[in-house]
Amino acid sequence: MANSKYEYVKSFEQSDALLPHTWIVIRVDGRGFTRFAQVHGFQKPNDEQALHLMNECATAVLEDIPDICFGYGVSDEYRSAAAAVAMSFVLRKNSTLFQRRASKLVSIVVSLFSATYVMKWGRYFPGTEMQYAPSFDGRAVCYPSDTILRDYLSWRQVDCHVNNQYNTCYWSLVHSGCSPAEAQNVIKGTLADFKNELLHTRFGINYNDLPAIFRKGSLVFKRKDENIVKVENGVPIKRQKTMVVVSHEDLIKDSFWKENPSILGSAN
Amino acid sequence: MANSKYEYVKSFEQSDALLPHTWIVIRVDGRGFTRFAQVHGFQKPNDEQALHLMNECATAVLEDIPDICFGYGVSDEYRSAAAAVAMSFVLRKNSTLFQRRASKLVSIVVSLFSATYVMKWGRYFPGTEMQYAPSFDGRAVCYPSDTILRDYLSWRQVDCHVNNQYNTCYWSLVHSGCSPAEAQNVIKGTLADFKNELLHTRFGINYNDLPAIFRKGSLVFKRKDENIVKVENGVPIKRQKTMVVVSHEDLIKDSFWKENPSILGSAN
Amino acid sequence: MANSKYEYVKSFEQSDALLPHTWIVIRVDGRGFTRFAQVHGFQKPNDEQALHLMNECATAVLEDIPDICFGYGVSDEYRSAAAAVAMSFVLRKNSTLFQRRASKLVSIVVSLFSATYVMKWGRYFPGTEMQYAPSFDGRAVCYPSDTILRDYLSWRQVDCHVNNQYNTCYWSLVHSGCSPAEAQNVIKGTLADFKNELLHTRFGINYNDLPAIFRKGSLVFKRKDENIVKVENGVPIKRQKTMVVVSHEDLIKDSFWKENPSILGSAN
Amino acid sequence: MANSKYEYVKSFEQSDALLPHTWIVIRVDGRGFTRFAQVHGFQKPNDEQALHLMNECATAVLEDIPDICFGYGVSDEYRSAAAAVAMSFVLRKNSTLFQRRASKLVSIVVSLFSATYVMKWGRYFPGTEMQYAPSFDGRAVCYPSDTILRDYLSWRQVDCHVNNQYNTCYWSLVHSGCSPAEAQNVIKGTLADFKNELLHTRFGINYNDLPAIFRKGSLVFKRKDENIVKVENGVPIKRQKTMVVVSHEDLIKDSFWKENPSILGSAN
Repeated sequence: MANSKYEYVKSFEQSDALLPHTWIVIRVDGRGFTRFAQVHGFQKPNDEQALHLMNECATAVLEDIPDICFGYGVSDEYRSAAAAVAMSFVLRKNSTLFQRRASKLVSIVVSLFSATYVMKWGRYFPGTEMQYAPSFDGRAVCYPSDTILRDYLSWRQVDCHVNNQYNTCYWSLVHSGCSPAEAQNVIKGTLADFKNELLHTRFGINYNDLPAIFRKGSLVFKRKDENIVKVENGVPIKRQKTMVVVSHEDLIKDSFWKENPSILGSAN
Repeated sequence: MANSKYEYVKSFEQSDALLPHTWIVIRVDGRGFTRFAQVHGFQKPNDEQALHLMNECATAVLEDIPDICFGYGVSDEYRSAAAAVAMSFVLRKNSTLFQRRASKLVSIVVSLFSATYVMKWGRYFPGTEMQYAPSFDGRAVCYPSDTILRDYLSWRQVDCHVNNQYNTCYWSLVHSGCSPAEAQNVIKGTLADFKNELLHTRFGINYNDLPAIFRKGSLVFKRKDENIVKVENGVPIKRQKTMVVVSHEDLIKDSFWKENPSILGSAN
Repeated sequence: MANSKYEYVKSFEQSDALLPHTWIVIRVDGRGFTRFAQVHGFQKPNDEQALHLMNECATAVLEDIPDICFGYGVSDEYRSAAAAVAMSFVLRKNSTLFQRRASKLVSIVVSLFSATYVMKWGRYFPGTEMQYAPSFDGRAVCYPSDTILRDYLSWRQVDCHVNNQYNTCYWSLVHSGCSPAEAQNVIKGTLADFKNELLHTRFGINYNDLPAIFRKGSLVFKRKDENIVKVENGVPIKRQKTMVVVSHEDLIKDSFWKENPSILGSAN
Repeated sequence: MANSKYEYVKSFEQSDALLPHTWIVIRVDGRGFTRFAQVHGFQKPNDEQALHLMNECATAVLEDIPDICFGYGVSDEYRSAAAAVAMSFVLRKNSTLFQRRASKLVSIVVSLFSATYVMKWGRYFPGTEMQYAPSFDGRAVCYPSDTILRDYLSWRQVDCHVNNQYNTCYWSLVHSGCSPAEAQNVIKGTLADFKNELLHTRFGINYNDLPAIFRKGSLVFKRKDENIVKVENGVPIKRQKTMVVVSHEDLIKDSFWKENPSILGSAN
């Protein structure tokens, strides 16, 4: 067959299978989102609609790929040079999906995320036409133990808090008339207490009263719920159903993981 | 700072930089496109609108990422168990984009392709609502010489021809009343001449008269053109402009590459 | 400087750093040792001197590279097509030696092993001149948890037992006059009980009385011992010293690891 | 079978196959050779016997592994913090030896080199007992074209010259009574001309008269020679034989490669 003389080109494909029995985190980041946020008029420091859209995309990923058991996302805007979307997806430790090939896993997650972002745009930004296609990049990292995986997620949530506190101060100052440089000067190098105090005294904002979605980011995971599917002769018939849910809790403390043992556990 | 105890998780990221001075081909394939084509009523064996949409996505990739110098795409539907979209993008040999990190390169190309596919859907399928977000997977392969890169592309174009000839026979038979099994039996293991003869005598199809986009696939690349930008005192003022063009030529013979030396050359 | 135009060649070196916080096993195997054993008159099925030489090499590796905490070796001769030396070295989970670069780690262990093999040859084979330089190959594998590491080592020890039982039968038959083919026919596909019975009734060998070094392989590890370094005024002065020891115990059961907690533990 | 429950550990081995159709250079460096050279009384700045031993080891590698077509070695002692042995082996571009697995290739070359070093020690250092086993490390790097491979080798030979010139000055100064710090001060940052002048006027050394093995390093490769194998009725019977030869030529200019086309060519 004529093609056989070219068949040898197949041999150039190299394996990128990731180490078995490790947690794989697929990290998706907005590419050039500072401009995208600008062009589409996202609110500063946090655009709640953009966050809900991000979570809708994450939900689509969890619904499509059963081996992905958890997602954690933030509006990763730091000092105005920002990704604005940063989502981490966790693939089960024992998953053998696509033979754990890094490029397959990363590309499919990023593809689903990107396509859903465009498809659902109108639901969250009705009346705002998308000016150009957004894009995201991805990468995969292995974490060999539950402890290290949780440390990774904790690191992300601490980061979310630190960035959000900074940005809330920064944009409050800018919205109140400071120049960007002045705003930066006020908060540069200050501690958390100072920032909370600044928000309170100058802007009447109690940081802890801000929406949890800003302060804690978004946790996306599956939960088994009992639903009443019909009522027969007055008796409700229930069925267990697994649903993807979004919450904005603390994931650093043990309590979240104890209440949801199936996420990292072998159950589910 | 509270985050420092988690900083160590950064050390788990491993390098996936691809070998310098080699051509990188980023291959994008439709994932589960047999179903997607079915649900959205794609024509068999080739849906011309779907091919134009694919080429629009490829054009977006070339416009966005200057270091990608060439794309080649086909409707990769073989024996009805098909990808329906298979696009190869060539990154310049000397590119250092994203430090040649495989996951970065693959994910950004796949992301742009996916987002554009959804965004431009309505232009090619007006009146057909997208039922669900399509997804694509990607991977990157290095080819160390111009010859091997061209052999890879030739392999793809031979494949396009072989698949298209088979599929044209298969769907002509099925559209004329054969069952899928009967159609397969007629053509299984037959040579090119037999298939051409079958198309000619039974269906009045001269294979070589079929649209080149089906037989040759789509080449996407940049071409410098002179454009008249304005006319001053009756003298047309021209300016050179680089544009992404789509063609359906033979890329196996030398002639295409000789006529377009800037694609693989250092020029452009 | 004249060299600067060539400096770019440095960029081709690619990272091969292994995943942090995983156990790295560096496996060393004799290359073409069937012939080496033949030429140098090794005894069949096990040459005790060759095993002692292997253990001396392993000891040299553990003494030279502090981060290697364990070695396990066998005479890996299976059905006469054999490696004759197969040693697994365990690098501490948290080691950052040579930034965990695979080729560095593997090459240094193999180099030390090879050089010591030649250097100490005369001690174990006095009067037998080495006919040609032996060689070994190596590779590194990551195991993400203590359990999996222990499963790897258990796998090796079960293998040692299975091979040794087979080989003892095979060579007893051959030494008693069977042809290799006849010997293979007698034992092919038989169970452990059959082989033990064969050894007992036909050759008067009680398998469990064979030297443990043959049945269990060799464990090489560090142990802290108290030594009397001098006696002052009749009072013995002791000092703790870490020594590399070789034993031939069961490593599948928990007991070995409980008695030697420092091997996999953070101590030592 | 009892072992089957552990069989899963095999799945942790990851592919490290190197890109096909690229030159693979396996670089072997002495580890801690400053001390080894000191303990065994190597001459400064170059010990000719040590270089001949290095070349004997390289010859053994080329004789054992047919796919290795070239070796280049230097005494890599730079500013007294030195490797003292640095050998680069070139594996043919089209070799599929060990499926081009990096760790296999590197470990076998390093192993052969190390074992031969110990075995042949007595031939080059008669009367000097080896005090401890030397060790070497290795790594493999792919070069995608002939030009880049030659640039790599040229880089090494320029380096050899630069180091040797520096070291000849340094040790001439030290041998004539300078302290190490004084010697360094004299030559630090000076150009080649200054160093040549220094050697000439102060020590009567014409740099270009120094042995080529010091100035050019050692090239190790195969050459086909015609040998007279016997004389029959007064007629000499010749046979072509491939032999490993060592030379100390310039490899930067084209001439060496033109005179020896089979090294990088498909011939041989």
